[in-house]
Amino acid sequence: MAKNFTKRSEDYSKWYNELVVKADLAENSDVRGCMVIKPYGYAIWEKMQAELDKMFKQTGHENAYFPLFIPKSYLSKEAAHVEGFAKECAVVTHYRLKVGEDGKSVVVDPDAKLEEELIVRPTSETIIWNSYKKWIQSYRDLPILINQWANVVRWEMRTRLFLRTAEFLWQEGHTAHATKKEAIAEAEQMLHVYGDFAENYMAMPVIKGVKSESERFAGALETYCIEAMMQDGKALQAGTSHFLGQNFAKAFDVKFTPKQGPQEYVWATSWGVSTRLMGALVMTHSDDHGLVLPPKLAPIHVAIVPIFRNEEQLDAISVVANQLKKELEAKGLSVKFDNRDTQKPGWKFAEYEFKGVPVRLAIGARDLENGTLEVARRDTLTKEVVEQDAVVDYVAGLMDKIQENLFLRADKLRTENTYKADTWEEFERIINSEAGGFVEAHWDGTIETEDKIKELTKATIRCIPLDAVEEEGKCILTGKPSNKRVLFAKAY
Amino acid sequence: MAKNFTKRSEDYSKWYNELVVKADLAENSDVRGCMVIKPYGYAIWEKMQAELDKMFKQTGHENAYFPLFIPKSYLSKEAAHVEGFAKECAVVTHYRLKVGEDGKSVVVDPDAKLEEELIVRPTSETIIWNSYKKWIQSYRDLPILINQWANVVRWEMRTRLFLRTAEFLWQEGHTAHATKKEAIAEAEQMLHVYGDFAENYMAMPVIKGVKSESERFAGALETYCIEAMMQDGKALQAGTSHFLGQNFAKAFDVKFTPKQGPQEYVWATSWGVSTRLMGALVMTHSDDHGLVLPPKLAPIHVAIVPIFRNEEQLDAISVVANQLKKELEAKGLSVKFDNRDTQKPGWKFAEYEFKGVPVRLAIGARDLENGTLEVARRDTLTKEVVEQDAVVDYVAGLMDKIQENLFLRADKLRTENTYKADTWEEFERIINSEAGGFVEAHWDGTIETEDKIKELTKATIRCIPLDAVEEEGKCILTGKPSNKRVLFAKAY
Repeated sequence: MAKNFTKRSEDYSKWYNELVVKADLAENSDVRGCMVIKPYGYAIWEKMQAELDKMFKQTGHENAYFPLFIPKSYLSKEAAHVEGFAKECAVVTHYRLKVGEDGKSVVVDPDAKLEEELIVRPTSETIIWNSYKKWIQSYRDLPILINQWANVVRWEMRTRLFLRTAEFLWQEGHTAHATKKEAIAEAEQMLHVYGDFAENYMAMPVIKGVKSESERFAGALETYCIEAMMQDGKALQAGTSHFLGQNFAKAFDVKFTPKQGPQEYVWATSWGVSTRLMGALVMTHSDDHGLVLPPKLAPIHVAIVPIFRNEEQLDAISVVANQLKKELEAKGLSVKFDNRDTQKPGWKFAEYEFKGVPVRLAIGARDLENGTLEVARRDTLTKEVVEQDAVVDYVAGLMDKIQENLFLRADKLRTENTYKADTWEEFERIINSEAGGFVEAHWDGTIETEDKIKELTKATIRCIPLDAVEEEGKCILTGKPSNKRVLFAKAY
Repeated sequence: MAKNFTKRSEDYSKWYNELVVKADLAENSDVRGCMVIKPYGYAIWEKMQAELDKMFKQTGHENAYFPLFIPKSYLSKEAAHVEGFAKECAVVTHYRLKVGEDGKSVVVDPDAKLEEELIVRPTSETIIWNSYKKWIQSYRDLPILINQWANVVRWEMRTRLFLRTAEFLWQEGHTAHATKKEAIAEAEQMLHVYGDFAENYMAMPVIKGVKSESERFAGALETYCIEAMMQDGKALQAGTSHFLGQNFAKAFDVKFTPKQGPQEYVWATSWGVSTRLMGALVMTHSDDHGLVLPPKLAPIHVAIVPIFRNEEQLDAISVVANQLKKELEAKGLSVKFDNRDTQKPGWKFAEYEFKGVPVRLAIGARDLENGTLEVARRDTLTKEVVEQDAVVDYVAGLMDKIQENLFLRADKLRTENTYKADTWEEFERIINSEAGGFVEAHWDGTIETEDKIKELTKATIRCIPLDAVEEEGKCILTGKPSNKRVLFAKAY
């Protein structure tokens, strides 16, 4: 275990912050609120990107790239949107620096003031719909199914690595459709793509639902979301998909000529996930020994550590290790044979454990004699001695087992910490408990009640689950009638 | 041929601008100098990225991500660097907008002024070396071999799609080494990676060399470059790799403890290619009929166009076409079977020709009877009738042939337009000729002469080729002695 590493039970928040830095995932930069994503963290993000990108393309989307800057006036074209996004933005006002009067420092050149300020994109609906206006005339131009991988900036006051940073990386899909039905189907499809990715790659169970009105994306008619439970019982919104109706088409005057009849406004969706998923991944699986990574997103699947007293022993072990590496790589696994003599085996064990490498193999001189190896699983922290002849298939099989085990473990945690509350007392007791959790409860459907509950408990409506059962009930706060339970939790 | 499409011989510059837009590669956005990269253009860029990324990883590099913003004061830490980059930058001065007094517009909130302005990165040496300072203590921390895929902004006054835009996409490698020798070897290695990519993937022959002092990157001790010839005889710098010496280590105080002896400053390189390569690709191969793409970077390798009078015929053709598609895809080719009935075959022929799809297959009712197909090559614009049974292997083989032919064609053009000049009159005559070209000539090695030649002819020293032969000669302008020829040309 890494030195000076806080335990989850001591301080979950501190544990997270330390883990992200000590596992070399990311660190704070000297630029306020902006992070540096280090190579090991970026390698995980690249794996996420690759899988998501494949899923987007399989569902017919293409990638494109739109400008980083948005003219200030665009933001005010969609009323709800400006309300939601225009507040905390990075504003470019000048386009030139010059050498200061001291001859050394640089100063902003007052003569290089922009006529209209540019906003560093907090999201790209406005700049993209300004382009779509030129691209869409006829029903033949629809649908447009575009995704963009990009950086965005939202000037957050309190930032935390991956979870909330001023600049972050994400993908944003922006689609245009001829009919309302098609646009809703698209928004729902992408919700399911996100759900599949979260569950099958991140091994993170999620609840799919829609946001209440007050939690909707600025400019959306419906916001679909996936919500996951972190180990501290808090919820984390992991991805959103928005049905935007005709709001942006109207704001940017984007109409099309249908097969028959007069011109109509175009229907829109947008959907995105970000480097926030990195935070979700860490907080779902990792433990007091460091990172735990699901094999499908691990940059290194297997670390092989030789245990040797002299060069002769290392040479003999290397023959076996290199052969194993080759065979494991042929199975599609990424393998690191760590033959450095600058670090001891114990140090290496701790290192790969802390970095969440799913399987560690150790080979010593006695193993060579016996034709065996030690196989250690990161998820269960268990060790076994396995025959060399059988180890390749065994380790390949372990990848599926570990992936499954992580999902089941997270699912169990969530199930155990999901409650039904039928009275306000019950609700308050659970929400305010140390362990936290999700609470399924009736709500009268009003913003006022939602606000009041938030004010009283800090819990918010995470979503109205898509699979919520119709049942008669009474709002936990007001006692007014309700026909389904919604999901409450404290959230990141 | 597309309607209203300018010929290269009429106006090469106009031809390029029209081609980029009409072939759906990119368009100007309403944000000054910023482009929208459309899906077809972005698909080519993605192919470039994928290959380059593989080559970077094969040479031991990892990806990471550093902040978009650079504190203004960082830029002034390296003297030459601030000189080169601080001039035309996007400057963020505020972090909030608010609703204006009219209750509708948004205005910059004067209360949200940043204490220190932030610059949108024009390149990332300063922000990255500020991080390296924290990462490097001992020789064990070296080398650091990091690459970043990112957007950067340089406030160019005259912009052209892909060739020169205010915002562009690129990769920037930033490495740190214990020795000068290792850093130089790295910079040279990356030059060769770029050269291999240009020649083997883009089918674009390049000259490798070093820049003269006045054309060096701001802060570099040596700038290596690859230079290509466009069809109008002008040069285009396609990639650069810089040996930065200890300049940035000194500016950011980055020292390391070697195995023996006192602390030393770290040695650095940086290297990059950008979406400018898209412009180079277009201008190297394309013709008066539209884009011509080398198969290794073509998003679609083969377009299959059915020629049919009724649905029955289309059904019969589809059986053959879908089978062909499957077999071609099994060979790793990307195939589009265009069975739309909204467009005529002639329209489709023109479309795929204009978009540079390397091979087009046409199947009509008579082909079905005869067991044949028409195979059209985009590079040569030739057509052949091929037996259905043989077509898969034939088309797969064509990909290599087309890739090779494009390289040879470009190489021939460059050879034919590369001259030696030994007198000023000769030099001027060639440089000022309609066809342009590269001129190998002697130069006395001074900045003054270089400037004077530029002033007189607009030609610059593109590079001092790595393979320049040692020979005695006299500077074409001053007659002073010189020991090797350098490469002059007018350039993009």
